[in-house]
Amino acid sequence: MSLKIVVIGGVATGPKAAARARRLLPDAQITIIEQDSWFSYGSCGLPLYLGGLVPELAGLTKTSAGIVRDANYFLQEKDVVIRGRTKAVSIDREKKEVLLEVVDGGKDIVAYDYLVLATGSRPVKLLVPGNDLPGIYNMHHPEDAAKLQKQMRQKIEDIVIVGGGLIGLELVDALHGRKRNITVVEKEKQLLSGLFDPEMASLVKRHLERHKVKVICGQSLTGFSGHEKLEQVLTEKCTLPAEAAVVAVGVRPMVDLAEDAGLYLGPTGAIAVDSQLRTSDTSIFAGGDCIENTHIVTGKPTYVPLASTANKHGRVIGSNIAGMGETFPGVLGTTVLKALDLNIGRAGLTETEALKEGYEVVTALISGHDTAHYYPLSADAIIKLVVNKEEGTLIGAQVLGTGEVIKRLDVLAAAITFKANVEQISGLDLGYAPAFASPIDTAIHAANVLSNKLNGLAVGMSPGEFADKLLSFGDYMVLDVRQEEETTDTPVDDQRVKTIPLGQLRTRIDELPADREILTLCQLGTRSYEAAVILQAHGFNKVKFVEGGLLAVNYGG
Amino acid sequence: MSLKIVVIGGVATGPKAAARARRLLPDAQITIIEQDSWFSYGSCGLPLYLGGLVPELAGLTKTSAGIVRDANYFLQEKDVVIRGRTKAVSIDREKKEVLLEVVDGGKDIVAYDYLVLATGSRPVKLLVPGNDLPGIYNMHHPEDAAKLQKQMRQKIEDIVIVGGGLIGLELVDALHGRKRNITVVEKEKQLLSGLFDPEMASLVKRHLERHKVKVICGQSLTGFSGHEKLEQVLTEKCTLPAEAAVVAVGVRPMVDLAEDAGLYLGPTGAIAVDSQLRTSDTSIFAGGDCIENTHIVTGKPTYVPLASTANKHGRVIGSNIAGMGETFPGVLGTTVLKALDLNIGRAGLTETEALKEGYEVVTALISGHDTAHYYPLSADAIIKLVVNKEEGTLIGAQVLGTGEVIKRLDVLAAAITFKANVEQISGLDLGYAPAFASPIDTAIHAANVLSNKLNGLAVGMSPGEFADKLLSFGDYMVLDVRQEEETTDTPVDDQRVKTIPLGQLRTRIDELPADREILTLCQLGTRSYEAAVILQAHGFNKVKFVEGGLLAVNYGG
Repeated sequence: MSLKIVVIGGVATGPKAAARARRLLPDAQITIIEQDSWFSYGSCGLPLYLGGLVPELAGLTKTSAGIVRDANYFLQEKDVVIRGRTKAVSIDREKKEVLLEVVDGGKDIVAYDYLVLATGSRPVKLLVPGNDLPGIYNMHHPEDAAKLQKQMRQKIEDIVIVGGGLIGLELVDALHGRKRNITVVEKEKQLLSGLFDPEMASLVKRHLERHKVKVICGQSLTGFSGHEKLEQVLTEKCTLPAEAAVVAVGVRPMVDLAEDAGLYLGPTGAIAVDSQLRTSDTSIFAGGDCIENTHIVTGKPTYVPLASTANKHGRVIGSNIAGMGETFPGVLGTTVLKALDLNIGRAGLTETEALKEGYEVVTALISGHDTAHYYPLSADAIIKLVVNKEEGTLIGAQVLGTGEVIKRLDVLAAAITFKANVEQISGLDLGYAPAFASPIDTAIHAANVLSNKLNGLAVGMSPGEFADKLLSFGDYMVLDVRQEEETTDTPVDDQRVKTIPLGQLRTRIDELPADREILTLCQLGTRSYEAAVILQAHGFNKVKFVEGGLLAVNYGG
Repeated sequence: MSLKIVVIGGVATGPKAAARARRLLPDAQITIIEQDSWFSYGSCGLPLYLGGLVPELAGLTKTSAGIVRDANYFLQEKDVVIRGRTKAVSIDREKKEVLLEVVDGGKDIVAYDYLVLATGSRPVKLLVPGNDLPGIYNMHHPEDAAKLQKQMRQKIEDIVIVGGGLIGLELVDALHGRKRNITVVEKEKQLLSGLFDPEMASLVKRHLERHKVKVICGQSLTGFSGHEKLEQVLTEKCTLPAEAAVVAVGVRPMVDLAEDAGLYLGPTGAIAVDSQLRTSDTSIFAGGDCIENTHIVTGKPTYVPLASTANKHGRVIGSNIAGMGETFPGVLGTTVLKALDLNIGRAGLTETEALKEGYEVVTALISGHDTAHYYPLSADAIIKLVVNKEEGTLIGAQVLGTGEVIKRLDVLAAAITFKANVEQISGLDLGYAPAFASPIDTAIHAANVLSNKLNGLAVGMSPGEFADKLLSFGDYMVLDVRQEEETTDTPVDDQRVKTIPLGQLRTRIDELPADREILTLCQLGTRSYEAAVILQAHGFNKVKFVEGGLLAVNYGG
């Protein structure tokens, strides 16, 4: 008798697990159950479709050789039966059977030796008045994109995106550039809440605003209104005109089937699995958006549903059905996105998360160039590192910039995974040529700055704190050490600012008050660091340098 | 008495060491001795200047804030005296003095507590007839670029680049695109000898040739000829017309001063230093192109002169003069370059090097996309991994492609540094969004393929071996499993080729000879892997899949 493998879910983890199992177990009977008629699609590509970068939705279901991954493809290329429009209703774990309900009518039972749950997630629905008006969309399923696209082909002047997280900002990117007004409404006080620290998120907000996107943070949605179709989106404080709204306020794991079958859920509400991705029933594996993962830094359960993780899960599950004993190492919550030419990414813990988890941390925020600064295509890069102070190891990284910052994020994600300390990162032999990096790569520069802070060589102030401080009344001096032409070109308008170019600082040091707090400032945060060191050497002991410089204080400004 | 620090060499390591020492030791007297009048320039930018991407050479000596790093800059910003056009003639280690000779006349003596040797390297000169004819250039110093540029502004129809290594190919990139014929002459049988394995180097060669660059490998230069100026470059087998030639056949460390002072040189001929970059005299540090480094994989001395390493050296030296006890971890020989839109990089050991070092290795070569394949800006990526078979750890990576492959190289360089095994690389939580990667990043895909090979799931054949095999007479069959439209579009012209699209393989398997060697082939190497697995499951036991597929066999073809 050949092994019977039943996979519930036909998008990412499911097909991957099935394909891997097939290659390892040529004689197994493998069946995928999928309630939808769309299989194996790249749902992360939906914003690209909306933005016109992917001409048709079918493109998202094709292999790189242009073959549509339909039932025929699965049967012929993978020797896997996929049963579409078929819902798995319940699992009988004793009999090892799944009860099926075919959408077009009829019931069926399928038996398994191994069952794979890849039931995915569903978008959170906002329980507010008017939430069923036409013109309100999710962005989870290809049909969501198709419907919105259809409405967009008629005229839409005002569109509201509810939720300023990953999907919300990808939608900004997709919908921008056409002649319409986009407003993002986010209930938290910042964009990318839970993903970015406030000071980094505020730079993203400024970037969007500069591109004429309206961003409203700290206001909950209270309802939708309109006569037969959406006309207005209502928040606590304002009424926004909107012919269309996309709700992207997160997803929840689809766990009903698992829960009804008595499988354990974890503290996040998703299905709990062991390191080999087995559920509490050893004949049942689970992966993708319906399970929780172990966070590599904290060792705690975390819910981070992403396609990259789902694909890894599928491979591990396929291997383990074949008895290979592979483990899934967990996740760093690595998240990257593109929003209006701004590349954004994070991995590990933010400072906010790290403090909440009880770590004592040291951080550094730097501004720099993604290539040699004289390379004509050079673009900006801002990096924030979070280090476990006790152990000196990197536990988090956040990056943003119009430059190639995602490269640095991936390197830093590897460094976090391998528990690298700051000195090890400073010493990494990364690729250098002017087109690809500075001789001192920005990631290494960030580690160097962190090392300086750990060694107490200078005291930094985050650009966010500095921006706040500029708005307050305090008895301090800002020492702008940029060149005269820079300060003329982009002055910092504040009476507390004194400008002395770095090259004149040593000779003009008597002009500075020894007893007053001095915040040194430059464009990128390197000259201001140097100025702080010089002042300290001259006995000034209330000096801080503004990390990341004006670029980070006033990103894109 | 303040500490006296003397630094010999004013380009990369020297100024960096001086600046770092200044920040840590505000009272030290710091002097840089530089025989030239150019300081602190980005010599890696010379090809960019030639290519018109950097408008003037002075741009290479400016900080990112536009300040020229001249003697005044060093004095005012860094409180460092730089003495240009001053040659360090000898070191008296007992008296701790350096004898100086000023180019404009006069001698001087400077005393030190700590001496830093950052004497750099000089280009290897070819000892062949005619090597002093006008029209023959090096590419090491800004003046070299200035002179070549001057000649180029008159007309040059034919230019020969002698040396197909890093600098040679950067020059191809710089000089291409103008109306002239470029020929590269390389004495080894491949380009990038010592940096790339032959099969990867052959793809670079094909890329250059497709862009009408003539590449001659395996021929030594025998001389230059011409009447008062260069007219021809002569190799063993041919005579090449050339109004200009650039000789880029490597550099040698400048060690005369160190050697004369009795400091130890290492087996590579460069100055030997300990992990804190001290020479055999504890008062003398050395860094940059004049020293040898420890290879992180082999633990052996290696000579890899690069600006990124030189800058790291400078920082470590500055720190250690201040007593911080920092170590420099060594290098991976990470090298990246851009040649006609092809991004190229390597880190760790090539297969060739690894075998020479006595490692038993397993390799994998994959082709893929740098983004989701449906992303419109998607470009190709080819990665070769070299793994220590005994330990399963990554020891080398080579990448090339028009896509963002340098990101993957940097991640893999970090993985090599942290002694990651293949499973750990497969599990890395790298950033995924369609604009930045496939759900399974190409670096992870490469690790997965390597894992499959380590586990004996299929036997691969490298694309280079396959290309050779196609040229031989052998009793084997090539099974092309691409779609019909692909095989029609780009057929593999060979009588031994049989085409069965992967989706038909299971039903048409009887058409295949069970006793014959079968090489499965597709576009990227994934379907051919799947085909090999299917055939094996059906009892075929002489099957290999062509790694990296036709893309790697026939790059850019």
